[in-house]
Amino acid sequence: MGKGSDGVRLSEEQRLDWLCLIRSDNVGPRTFRALVNHYGGARAALAALPDLARRGGASRATRVHSRQDAERELKAAKALGVAFVALGEPDYPCRLQMIDDAPPLLAVRGQTAVLHLPAVAVVGARNASAAGLRFAERLARDLGAADFAVVSGLARGIDAAAHRASLATGTIAVLAGGHDHVYPREHVDLADAILAQGALVSEMPFGHEPRARDFPRRNRLISGLCAGIVVVEAAKRSGSLITARFALEQSREVFAVPGSPLDPRAEGTNDLIKQGATLVTDAADVIAVLRPILGKPIELRAEEPEAPSGPGAEPGAGERARIVGLLGPTPVPIDDLVRLSGSSPAIVRVVLLELELAGDGSNATAAPWCRCCRRRGRRNFSA
Amino acid sequence: MGKGSDGVRLSEEQRLDWLCLIRSDNVGPRTFRALVNHYGGARAALAALPDLARRGGASRATRVHSRQDAERELKAAKALGVAFVALGEPDYPCRLQMIDDAPPLLAVRGQTAVLHLPAVAVVGARNASAAGLRFAERLARDLGAADFAVVSGLARGIDAAAHRASLATGTIAVLAGGHDHVYPREHVDLADAILAQGALVSEMPFGHEPRARDFPRRNRLISGLCAGIVVVEAAKRSGSLITARFALEQSREVFAVPGSPLDPRAEGTNDLIKQGATLVTDAADVIAVLRPILGKPIELRAEEPEAPSGPGAEPGAGERARIVGLLGPTPVPIDDLVRLSGSSPAIVRVVLLELELAGDGSNATAAPWCRCCRRRGRRNFSA
Repeated sequence: MGKGSDGVRLSEEQRLDWLCLIRSDNVGPRTFRALVNHYGGARAALAALPDLARRGGASRATRVHSRQDAERELKAAKALGVAFVALGEPDYPCRLQMIDDAPPLLAVRGQTAVLHLPAVAVVGARNASAAGLRFAERLARDLGAADFAVVSGLARGIDAAAHRASLATGTIAVLAGGHDHVYPREHVDLADAILAQGALVSEMPFGHEPRARDFPRRNRLISGLCAGIVVVEAAKRSGSLITARFALEQSREVFAVPGSPLDPRAEGTNDLIKQGATLVTDAADVIAVLRPILGKPIELRAEEPEAPSGPGAEPGAGERARIVGLLGPTPVPIDDLVRLSGSSPAIVRVVLLELELAGDGSNATAAPWCRCCRRRGRRNFSA
Repeated sequence: MGKGSDGVRLSEEQRLDWLCLIRSDNVGPRTFRALVNHYGGARAALAALPDLARRGGASRATRVHSRQDAERELKAAKALGVAFVALGEPDYPCRLQMIDDAPPLLAVRGQTAVLHLPAVAVVGARNASAAGLRFAERLARDLGAADFAVVSGLARGIDAAAHRASLATGTIAVLAGGHDHVYPREHVDLADAILAQGALVSEMPFGHEPRARDFPRRNRLISGLCAGIVVVEAAKRSGSLITARFALEQSREVFAVPGSPLDPRAEGTNDLIKQGATLVTDAADVIAVLRPILGKPIELRAEEPEAPSGPGAEPGAGERARIVGLLGPTPVPIDDLVRLSGSSPAIVRVVLLELELAGDGSNATAAPWCRCCRRRGRRNFSA
């Protein structure tokens, strides 16, 4: 496979604008996209941000990320050999840009070439069994030998075994923190070893120390980078099953390694197989499913064409109240809000952006939206 | 569930005729059925046997089982508490009579009532792991508690564990030898314990010591008695996989217990799941599939109505040569032989019966038939 996309590169000024926007309070990947779509660019969106959040009812002034901080982050990242690749640029991994909440900027350290290999995630339990570790190694080695990049999360157990076995052929570790906060610390050497033929990637700010809630959110990138994911040993309600759920939502193939019904570490994988995941005893099982998929061109989802509506398209107070009043505890598609409110789609989106930026909405302005989520505050990527 | 069938009982004279016919040389369950269909009864078939075999080219006189021997077998069996239940009689297990090669007479020791419970086979490796044994016990106990009879082969390992765990609820052991030759000998006590609530069944003659080739043949009865079979631990090319193959041919449900890809005892079961068997981690997985099936009436296959053609329908020498000449190394349906030879179906069947009884054919006169099988002599139920 060649480069991931035919996109053009951002200017360094635009890259700074993008970084400022995605690092501002309450701006996630979906909100970023909605803002850029609505205002026609990151710079105009940044200018509109404080006012939007205030109208959404923000209790305190929304922090807009400063240009100085963004410049400092870019400089520090560069010193560590980290490049910020923007959505749509040639180096951006082509499968990742298909997901709804693809990071606008991906911080990449190592070989960007590995991002364009067909990729398979190999994930699983931290407290893996000896057999599980041995199987993960064998699988990752065989997938690497078949020219797949092996993607995982650098965790103890299965993740580390998968990375180690594919160091020579190319492996990608997705970090839950910034590049200067590799977690766990005992895997700093492993992370360094990955750089020779592989890459470390992160969407999180330089300097960000990973918290528990960052790991599920990170998992969507593990599945998003790949054509399929293989779960090797997973208890019920484990992080690997969150990755499997993301994989399903992203239309990725899900594979699982079976185990004894008496082994709690196989409960999650056996359940996945019951639910339709492909049973894997050998890399050939994975390759047989993925080869035909990889042979086909990737279908990029059709982006809704939308002319920037500019500062003119602002809701009046009555219009805003009418739209907010339509939100209830049950999620409702944006199309319904448009129809029921009688407002234009652009106005409805602005009102939802306002609520979002006030820290009062879900991260999913492009997804069904409900007052319930709004009340519970910002929803993160939790299980 | 009540009795298996509304059939009528044979007279003791008829039962002796049936026993003589099925115990005669080269008469298997399919040939038995073809002979009785053609001659209108076992006694007429017995009378025709020597001549049929001679015309088929038997090198030596075909042994017709003597009435004295049959009487002796019935007497010895009775002394041990064994009853001979004939196909079509009320006590004959209703699912078993649906298979093509159902034994005309089933020798039953123990409680015939258990034959009318919905049944599930639990089979697997003789050299099972501790976890496999523990799982088999749990599964059999839970299936028993859900009013299923547990069927197995009385072998060491998984079979014995399944029987032991279902002694109180009812378990059926299918023997590969006669009732006076329980195998392995160390399971004689287990066999005795089964009798209280369950049954031992066999199609083999009293006095028959089981040989290696009798076990695969026996396995078709294990699956035939059941609505589904569960394979717990099985290496590749193991006897349990033969049972699974029979189950598929008999349209029974196939279930398999997963295991680590690094455990050779799970290779067979993981392969079955890859091929579409239902993954089982719990008795509920089995019950969920079987309950709806058990709720439906059993569809008995429509038997081809055929008037006995009597001794008049005998092939001439030229007709016989023409039909034999049509047989080649590739199996050919009997319908094709009828069409190509220009002979009546009855005549074609008689010629095939002749070859069969001469010990020169496959056991499958109702199945595609070929010269190749004829040359290799009688084919048994091998893997």
